[in-house]
Amino acid sequence: MNGARSLLSALVAHGVDVCFANPGTSEMHFVAGLDAVPQMRGVLTLFEGVATGAADGYARMADRPACVLLHLGPGLGNGLANLHNARRAHVPMVVVVGDHATYHKKYDAPLESDIDAVARTVSGWVRRTLDTGDIAVDVAAAVAAGRAGVVSTLILPADVSWTDSEPAERSLRSDHVPDPFPTPAAAAVVDDDAVRDAVAALDSGAATVLLIGGDATRDAGLSAAARIAEATGARVLCETFPTRLRRGAGVPAIERLAYFAEAAEEQLAGAEHLILAGAASPVSFFAYPGRPSDLVPAGCEVHTLATHSGATAALEALADELGGDTVVPVAPLRRPEMPTGALTAFSTAAAIGALLPEDAVIVDESNTAGIGVAAATAGAPAHDVLTLTGGAIGYGMPAAIGAAIAAPGRPVLSLQADGSAMYTLSALWTQAREQLDVTTVILNNGAYDILRIELQRVGAADDAPAGPQAQRLLDLGSPTIDFVKIAEGMGVPARRATTAEELAAALTAAFAEPGPHLIEVVLPSLVSG
Amino acid sequence: MNGARSLLSALVAHGVDVCFANPGTSEMHFVAGLDAVPQMRGVLTLFEGVATGAADGYARMADRPACVLLHLGPGLGNGLANLHNARRAHVPMVVVVGDHATYHKKYDAPLESDIDAVARTVSGWVRRTLDTGDIAVDVAAAVAAGRAGVVSTLILPADVSWTDSEPAERSLRSDHVPDPFPTPAAAAVVDDDAVRDAVAALDSGAATVLLIGGDATRDAGLSAAARIAEATGARVLCETFPTRLRRGAGVPAIERLAYFAEAAEEQLAGAEHLILAGAASPVSFFAYPGRPSDLVPAGCEVHTLATHSGATAALEALADELGGDTVVPVAPLRRPEMPTGALTAFSTAAAIGALLPEDAVIVDESNTAGIGVAAATAGAPAHDVLTLTGGAIGYGMPAAIGAAIAAPGRPVLSLQADGSAMYTLSALWTQAREQLDVTTVILNNGAYDILRIELQRVGAADDAPAGPQAQRLLDLGSPTIDFVKIAEGMGVPARRATTAEELAAALTAAFAEPGPHLIEVVLPSLVSG
Repeated sequence: MNGARSLLSALVAHGVDVCFANPGTSEMHFVAGLDAVPQMRGVLTLFEGVATGAADGYARMADRPACVLLHLGPGLGNGLANLHNARRAHVPMVVVVGDHATYHKKYDAPLESDIDAVARTVSGWVRRTLDTGDIAVDVAAAVAAGRAGVVSTLILPADVSWTDSEPAERSLRSDHVPDPFPTPAAAAVVDDDAVRDAVAALDSGAATVLLIGGDATRDAGLSAAARIAEATGARVLCETFPTRLRRGAGVPAIERLAYFAEAAEEQLAGAEHLILAGAASPVSFFAYPGRPSDLVPAGCEVHTLATHSGATAALEALADELGGDTVVPVAPLRRPEMPTGALTAFSTAAAIGALLPEDAVIVDESNTAGIGVAAATAGAPAHDVLTLTGGAIGYGMPAAIGAAIAAPGRPVLSLQADGSAMYTLSALWTQAREQLDVTTVILNNGAYDILRIELQRVGAADDAPAGPQAQRLLDLGSPTIDFVKIAEGMGVPARRATTAEELAAALTAAFAEPGPHLIEVVLPSLVSG
Repeated sequence: MNGARSLLSALVAHGVDVCFANPGTSEMHFVAGLDAVPQMRGVLTLFEGVATGAADGYARMADRPACVLLHLGPGLGNGLANLHNARRAHVPMVVVVGDHATYHKKYDAPLESDIDAVARTVSGWVRRTLDTGDIAVDVAAAVAAGRAGVVSTLILPADVSWTDSEPAERSLRSDHVPDPFPTPAAAAVVDDDAVRDAVAALDSGAATVLLIGGDATRDAGLSAAARIAEATGARVLCETFPTRLRRGAGVPAIERLAYFAEAAEEQLAGAEHLILAGAASPVSFFAYPGRPSDLVPAGCEVHTLATHSGATAALEALADELGGDTVVPVAPLRRPEMPTGALTAFSTAAAIGALLPEDAVIVDESNTAGIGVAAATAGAPAHDVLTLTGGAIGYGMPAAIGAAIAAPGRPVLSLQADGSAMYTLSALWTQAREQLDVTTVILNNGAYDILRIELQRVGAADDAPAGPQAQRLLDLGSPTIDFVKIAEGMGVPARRATTAEELAAALTAAFAEPGPHLIEVVLPSLVSG
């Protein structure tokens, strides 16, 4: 068995059985090995950023890592932005980067580059396998590291891939091999001192905000947080960009910390205690002249109850400690009325709220144009939302691939702003190739609206209004991007909606028919360009 | 004047007056400054890899660097593959990466990452400007480094961008500021010992190959190399992927070293001396089991006459030393006959050779499907060819943008394989936005044909033919990609050609009308899938 097959077998043995791939010559033995290891599902992507984003969406929904197969340093570079998003959210992933044969590197062939240095900037674990006999051990370590919430990167030289491995004994010589099948991460150890500290803050009578994130944004964590709020009157907020948020009818409702720092400051105003459960202490997404980076109100005491992976357990311990009712209020089923007439960001959101299917997964990269979606879907059937955790755009359409593969029975709604859609467009082709049940709604306002807003907020237009050269760099309307044609060009059926009635008809049809669909919603810009 | 305007003014003062930009919030002051520095042309790209590839194509044709504006670490990551290609070819470029405000970095906001580490892997010069007053000096150093043939990366924190600078004296305090306007790189110093060594090899009577590259693949270098060949009988070859190769009618013809190592070995077989002028010693692009990486024949002595930037001067000195006629044979004007009937890779190439306009720039990322283009255009009107110097695909359509902007009077022909076209597709939108005279020919064979070939060559299919899972990862035909729709979706007029007659009509129309056009050529795969 050559190294590539050892690798595939070891990945499958450790529960990694989907590989999002964009291979090249140095990965041909991996590709050829797929037929010998049929448990591994290879999914072709036409750009590496699609592969890494898909693996992120997959892991968020499957709760276990997928593999990503990339070609040398440039392939890793193309995948870097979505690896950044995964890193920021502690999403597990096993990235295999093929490299030149060990003996070939010294010749500095055209594709030679410093893979290790780039990998270290996004990976919690990096290893270069130099001997075929080490593959099984290295895969075990990579998966174990990934399961702890990091991007693991295994660099695999071509000759290690094509060389036959030693007998199986050697592969198993290490005692570092974890369980052959993935299990949920071991129950987090709750820090009793941190719980007592939180109880004291909550019992003090002072205004307290509980900010949750990490693993606490699913049913169990939300319920525990809601119990705490019921028992103490504390205000509960969720981090701005949760990795996977459960919400909708029957789920305890939670307010997200606002993206714009001014709004977040208002949400946090008056807090004397801030308890962090899985969330980082709130900071401004960007710096703005004359405004604070740290959003914790002056004089507010910050308490860290738990970090990202132990937040639910800690919240449950805290809720138990506080006692009180275990039945908490949940959002009622209450959909918006179907809007009519010309579409705006808000009527688009209302149509989505009115028609969202049961148990959907929303991948949200709608940015400014999605401003109304949270409110409009608050009472829709319960669903999961995946958000842009690291701010690197081009995440949504790839992540929708992974979510659909991880949750094959669930409809995926990919809400996508026009500007960010242009980064990883070929995700649509993979959605068509795999016939995934993804409905993409492109919110096309013909502009980088967020930047039109930020241009004002950073004071760049204070001396004089931005001139035509500046405006031209924020305008996407000249020429107009026709997402219907682009989608059809990649094999995804598509239609355009300019009225609420057209959008309702398009959403209804897309949700009713399996496979991918795209709906382009033509919206006015929120800001004059 | 704030830091952003200082930056723009300094760039313009040093002859950098085109900026390929994909900005974000931290770059808003740069964007707002464009109207105050109208000498700088801002060109919006919708993905960072388009910006970096455009800057590469620009510098190859303008012989001076463009600026690239990127947004934080993920923006740099998205631009990395084409920065790799530029690095490998010693193409100058000034990359400005906006970063968080200096005081904001410690808060580890979502977009925080190690920009410096990533930048160092592709840049010959990296500096982080921490004081607005240093901007003019840092820009001078960045441009000077770039002009020496590297990617220069200047990391610009948002607060340095928005803070008002000190009086102008400070900006000019350094004596490191180069000439305000770019001049060709100083005449390279010719190594007389290396010339004498080459003369001895050429006079020895032993079989000698002269391998040229770097700056020697334009008229002067090619003429000098041809004189040497005429005087000595040496065989002249050009590196496999020249940065900018002049060829066609009236230019000394030169054979490129083959991509496949077996073919390159045949070209070099029997050589007893190999003289390198601007080219690296030949190595296999990838390693293959049982085949050598080093392509220099056993016993052949390698002589380095010059490196990339001094190759023309050294060749001229060598030619003068050898004496002989200064009139060298050049390629005659001889176009192929117009083909007819169904299209193949070869008839497509013949149509291109028959119709190529005067003084065109060919950006060649046609890969396997372009197999016939070199022969078919050998006698076409003289033209320049830009090639994929670093092997990172997704280069061609962005580079065509830069070439068209750098050489506005010249038609650009962008030959693009289907697989690599999918990496940086949104380049088409920028071609439409800027109304660039680029004719893109997509060679759509529905497959990663190069990988179908490499799968065999690396021996991955030796034990058994590649199975359906493997073949599926090399197939682009399911679903079929419709490049006509995709191009139209981005504002580029497009048509499809399935016969030579249709291709001739489409090429004729595209070359006759200014502005961008795309022609999709539907080809059979070279290899059965």
